[in-house]
Amino acid sequence: MKKLINDPNQFVDESVEGFALANPHLDVHETPRFITRREIENNKVALVSGGGSGHEPLHAGYVGHGMLDGACPGEVFSAPTPDQIYECAKVVHKGEGVLFFVKNYTGDVLSFETAVELLHAEGIPVVNVLIDDDVSQELNSHSVVGRRGMGTTIVVEKILGAAAQKGQSLDQLVDLAHRVVCNGWSVGLALTSCTVPHKGSPTFDLGDDQVEIGIGIHGERGQTDLAYKPADELVELLADKIFNGGDYSRHVREWNRNVGAWVEVELKNKSLKQGDRVIAIVNGMGGTPLSELYVVYRKLAQLCAEKGITIERNLVGSFITSLDMQGCSITMVRINDSLLELWDAPVSTAVLRWGM
Amino acid sequence: MKKLINDPNQFVDESVEGFALANPHLDVHETPRFITRREIENNKVALVSGGGSGHEPLHAGYVGHGMLDGACPGEVFSAPTPDQIYECAKVVHKGEGVLFFVKNYTGDVLSFETAVELLHAEGIPVVNVLIDDDVSQELNSHSVVGRRGMGTTIVVEKILGAAAQKGQSLDQLVDLAHRVVCNGWSVGLALTSCTVPHKGSPTFDLGDDQVEIGIGIHGERGQTDLAYKPADELVELLADKIFNGGDYSRHVREWNRNVGAWVEVELKNKSLKQGDRVIAIVNGMGGTPLSELYVVYRKLAQLCAEKGITIERNLVGSFITSLDMQGCSITMVRINDSLLELWDAPVSTAVLRWGM
Repeated sequence: MKKLINDPNQFVDESVEGFALANPHLDVHETPRFITRREIENNKVALVSGGGSGHEPLHAGYVGHGMLDGACPGEVFSAPTPDQIYECAKVVHKGEGVLFFVKNYTGDVLSFETAVELLHAEGIPVVNVLIDDDVSQELNSHSVVGRRGMGTTIVVEKILGAAAQKGQSLDQLVDLAHRVVCNGWSVGLALTSCTVPHKGSPTFDLGDDQVEIGIGIHGERGQTDLAYKPADELVELLADKIFNGGDYSRHVREWNRNVGAWVEVELKNKSLKQGDRVIAIVNGMGGTPLSELYVVYRKLAQLCAEKGITIERNLVGSFITSLDMQGCSITMVRINDSLLELWDAPVSTAVLRWGM
Repeated sequence: MKKLINDPNQFVDESVEGFALANPHLDVHETPRFITRREIENNKVALVSGGGSGHEPLHAGYVGHGMLDGACPGEVFSAPTPDQIYECAKVVHKGEGVLFFVKNYTGDVLSFETAVELLHAEGIPVVNVLIDDDVSQELNSHSVVGRRGMGTTIVVEKILGAAAQKGQSLDQLVDLAHRVVCNGWSVGLALTSCTVPHKGSPTFDLGDDQVEIGIGIHGERGQTDLAYKPADELVELLADKIFNGGDYSRHVREWNRNVGAWVEVELKNKSLKQGDRVIAIVNGMGGTPLSELYVVYRKLAQLCAEKGITIERNLVGSFITSLDMQGCSITMVRINDSLLELWDAPVSTAVLRWGM
């Protein structure tokens, strides 16, 4: 294993320290570890996310005006602890409540749920919103855990960030978050595994002539091991999973702050169809050159055009990664004029920055 | 070789086509291939760059308001042809002259020089500016070709873009470009080679316990093959090359449009010293995760602090790459208030975007 790191035990600390030095306008807290905006408006709901490290720029790269107020990086591929999340929320909360964006992984869900209960006990209004957009995973009665969270996370965080900045209430924001989650789909493809620093060797083996569709962002194995094919054929396989698998509903566990209890909320996605407008993300997994991502975007744009789906905005780059994994993921989120306006609203983070 | 490409012969065309689809506000010309801003102000000098493909986002990712007016991508690691550059310049020229930014590689230099002569023959004022900032290469009397061009390119393009936008004349811009080039240094490090699609195998072999310092952006071998070390030690080696090797002068061949001939221009760099202010870039070579680049930035920032050098602005990410190479390069450019103001001026490109 050759990586630009020192001691694997110090990797996350040192990477976050580097992030802090490169972004001196943000506050980086050490014990427990979290990143916050320095100046948060008093009349806005606080937005917090977090998850394992190794997915950079997620989530610290999205802290700033018009997006997140706080981010909690765990160890590599490990959920942040409840106290990280709790302390972060306490710092960014300005009296209007806190919204958590939680990618649907067991560890993340548990930590955020514990933080929700701690905050509720102190009388702080808080709601967790789950992101579960990985359509490569089957959803059936055996699926207790549900689908994983992927690139829709970025769109939720951006759109909600703009809405919070405009002063929308916690209840309005929760509705809006559901709307985005119910219109977002992702699917990933690995050309190679990633190598976790502590382990020092690839998480799984993938032959020189093999790729894997449906991989998770922690190097989880996918559903389909198949022969390496030209990019256009691979993109077609990925896009088909989004085009064809988009009609479903599921229940997610969410905190209802009015009744002070966990409730099951039904979320329904309805497939993309002709005439729909989307934000499309072609995302590199960490070790993928930008030039290849544009080859992927080219085919995706062609396929959308054939389907009569308009890509209104796009991101092409590495936005939610798996350490050094080579491969890509595709995310599509259906939008309308009001969501688009929120997407276009000014944002100023380490990674997404426009309008200011 | 597993890459997200189709036919290696179509790779650049398809990648550029994807870039065009993802950036519909830019004009992408096909035969010959170049990218231009759609609306260029009438009173500004036109700025054009180009070079081999495989270094994305360089240069197309820097076309837009406040940076380049046109970019000419060659084949992978191959210079653009003179007609690409000539046609591009003709499209973006608005009567105030054209400035070429040329990374110092033989092929690029030749193509741009030919384009200079073609444009001059038509009475279009044009000057080429050479970027030769790779301090890992020895400069001595045997060095006919000079040093390679690396990350200072991005700083030159950004600062000159802002100055052109403000209406500075071609002569003023040439002086300003010299000023930036004379204050910029880069050095690169490879953990792995890159794989050119046509070849299908790594350009060079690097053992599992070896790294190479002083690599070029085309997978050229470096000057120093050494044992893999922790990131901090590697960063120290890189930074020392910049701190210790910054005092030198050389002559570059530049078009003098007033006399209508090639002249030798002397450019002098004076080493960074205590009290200096810089823009620092920690750049990934294409296959390097962002998390590792922050580990590199952390050490670089510490070393600069020890030297009394203030990093006023930074970029951490993949800005000038070598396909899928793992590794990084460091660039430092000494700035003052006026250069900083130009760096901070609004820019709107696919990659750098702020203030608008």
